[in-house]
Amino acid sequence: MTNAEKAIALHEEWNGKFETTPKMTIATRQDLALAYTPGVAEPCKIIAKDQSAAYKYTIKSNTIAVVSDGSAVLGLGNIGAYAAMPVMEGKSVLFKSFGGVNAVPICLDTQDTEEIIKTIVHIAPAFGGINLEDISAPRCFEIEERLKQLLDIPVFHDDQHGTAIVVLAGIINSLKVTKKTKENCNVVVNGAGSAGIAITKLLLSYGFKHITMCDKTGILSKNSEGLNWMQETMMDLTNLENKTGTLADALVGADIFIGVSAPNIVTSEMVSTMNQDAILFAMANPVPEIMPDVAKAAGARIVGTGRSDFPNQVNNVIAFPGIFKGALEGHAKQITEEMKLAAATAIADLLSDEELSDTNILPEAFDPRVAEVVSKAVMEHIH
Amino acid sequence: MTNAEKAIALHEEWNGKFETTPKMTIATRQDLALAYTPGVAEPCKIIAKDQSAAYKYTIKSNTIAVVSDGSAVLGLGNIGAYAAMPVMEGKSVLFKSFGGVNAVPICLDTQDTEEIIKTIVHIAPAFGGINLEDISAPRCFEIEERLKQLLDIPVFHDDQHGTAIVVLAGIINSLKVTKKTKENCNVVVNGAGSAGIAITKLLLSYGFKHITMCDKTGILSKNSEGLNWMQETMMDLTNLENKTGTLADALVGADIFIGVSAPNIVTSEMVSTMNQDAILFAMANPVPEIMPDVAKAAGARIVGTGRSDFPNQVNNVIAFPGIFKGALEGHAKQITEEMKLAAATAIADLLSDEELSDTNILPEAFDPRVAEVVSKAVMEHIH
Repeated sequence: MTNAEKAIALHEEWNGKFETTPKMTIATRQDLALAYTPGVAEPCKIIAKDQSAAYKYTIKSNTIAVVSDGSAVLGLGNIGAYAAMPVMEGKSVLFKSFGGVNAVPICLDTQDTEEIIKTIVHIAPAFGGINLEDISAPRCFEIEERLKQLLDIPVFHDDQHGTAIVVLAGIINSLKVTKKTKENCNVVVNGAGSAGIAITKLLLSYGFKHITMCDKTGILSKNSEGLNWMQETMMDLTNLENKTGTLADALVGADIFIGVSAPNIVTSEMVSTMNQDAILFAMANPVPEIMPDVAKAAGARIVGTGRSDFPNQVNNVIAFPGIFKGALEGHAKQITEEMKLAAATAIADLLSDEELSDTNILPEAFDPRVAEVVSKAVMEHIH
Repeated sequence: MTNAEKAIALHEEWNGKFETTPKMTIATRQDLALAYTPGVAEPCKIIAKDQSAAYKYTIKSNTIAVVSDGSAVLGLGNIGAYAAMPVMEGKSVLFKSFGGVNAVPICLDTQDTEEIIKTIVHIAPAFGGINLEDISAPRCFEIEERLKQLLDIPVFHDDQHGTAIVVLAGIINSLKVTKKTKENCNVVVNGAGSAGIAITKLLLSYGFKHITMCDKTGILSKNSEGLNWMQETMMDLTNLENKTGTLADALVGADIFIGVSAPNIVTSEMVSTMNQDAILFAMANPVPEIMPDVAKAAGARIVGTGRSDFPNQVNNVIAFPGIFKGALEGHAKQITEEMKLAAATAIADLLSDEELSDTNILPEAFDPRVAEVVSKAVMEHIH
């Protein structure tokens, strides 16, 4: 049986990846009278007077919605709400397994920005947070921003910020290993969708000064055509010298390459033009921008990918369960930039200087300390 | 500790009445590769080609949403989405405890009919059914009807149809005990909201010919003022003699009284004017339209209430878990009138002639056979 066949057989056996489990037994009339009518009226009356009591008496305290419109699913693209469900169920299960956070998948049958925003606002009372997932750019930026303004619970687009946090954590440790400093590093981010833009923003927040974004047209600058509104905003913060050219041009003299783009687009020749002790996060899935052995042979020092069969796996599961665990425990109203930076630093600091090496820059996804330190970092930054 | 205090303490201890429980352990990279990426792509691709495969691979097969706008909650009225959550969580837990159906509470922050309809349509892909709950009349009628047209999964407003099914089951058995026949019974339904109208409709479907609806203004007829559109429709089906007068007038010569109205509005005098072997379902909560001992003393033969501390409790929990259990197992696209009639008959038939008595006309809510026979009745009527 191939892994694909195993996955299909298991999904059929599971027939839905989770179930809802009552916290009480209802076996007597008295049980019914306390969990349901008439007893249930008491917490209702308290919440009717004080809405914040919802955190005391309802699932809002420890449950989030994982919301997608199925427009940009994994490597599958725009497959719609129904086909996106196995992914959203999987994500929901990871929230519980890694962070102890209850999560409910909600797949929307609309891809209209306004309808998505209204729908999420309407269903928000039940939930303590909204994890947006696999919504295509640039709609994802507007949807997240608008929801942050409209809701008083955290809204977090994991494809953007989860990825950015884990990348930054890996970069922090890569700097330690290579003794490079953030202020002096030349960074190239290839891919200007939701992940690439979020990574760039978080690296800037962390203190990187020299970042160049590229996409399939090459280096992005103020003069590039066809940029979306978010990409245009990024041109005020990156490529300050207003360079033009190809990805190969961008990589000459670069210290760090971050790819959230396409398979095999970085060549040995390009790597050989990068600065010494080059760091490459080649995260295209399942085939990275350059294979680790090829990059190493061309002079790279540290190579991370999205894959679990190579060292230095950059995996969002290191971040998102702990992010919401902390946000829910602290009743956070937003996931702030400070929280993301603190989470990345906490992830990086889990590895001691002795543990750190070229092939060990990020903690294991299954390290039980990860969600703990991430949630603690988030909670320390709730005001 | 009073029951109210106990209910508050328990709700605080539960801190949300259910959790989400993954059906698999995710402890290794291989686990992750099967339940999440890359394995998860396989069922996604299958569903993208054939939407009906969602029933095979996702929670749609056994999960419903319990949706409310908090506009007509229990005896509490319009308390809004947040305060309604403990009730919807309780209902969700009853679905699982009694019917094995996973249920997710969704409380909406809007009470606009169009917004409610759109929101439910948008979130429907994840779910195998929609249980509407505690939405005020007459909006609930339009919302349910429109959703039935728009969705290909069952939509069921329990306050209407769950109540109606259990009432009909009790009435069927009351007829057996009293040897009355449906064609010859005079029925008075007091309360013309969602429950009263649904009960009346189902009794008509079952074959009752003479039903008079009343509300706080007295007997409803074609000449009544201020009727909503649904009540107007009902005037073509009830009170065919176009009677006018008070509830007391309606009860003269009546065989059956069904109250979904207000405490203590039926007097001994009124009961004494009813026909012999009168049947009263006085379901106002927590104080019925007339107390059972008072009604009995005035000549009533069978008295049911909504309360668990009197005989003949009319409790929706006898119906709704089995209704959705059967609908989900059979992939029903609607809950039809035939299914409701079959469910009521199946509930009634659970009690043998030997078991039936004036004080035992409905099976116990905790009888494990109940959900089984109801789901079977529903499945037998899926075309």
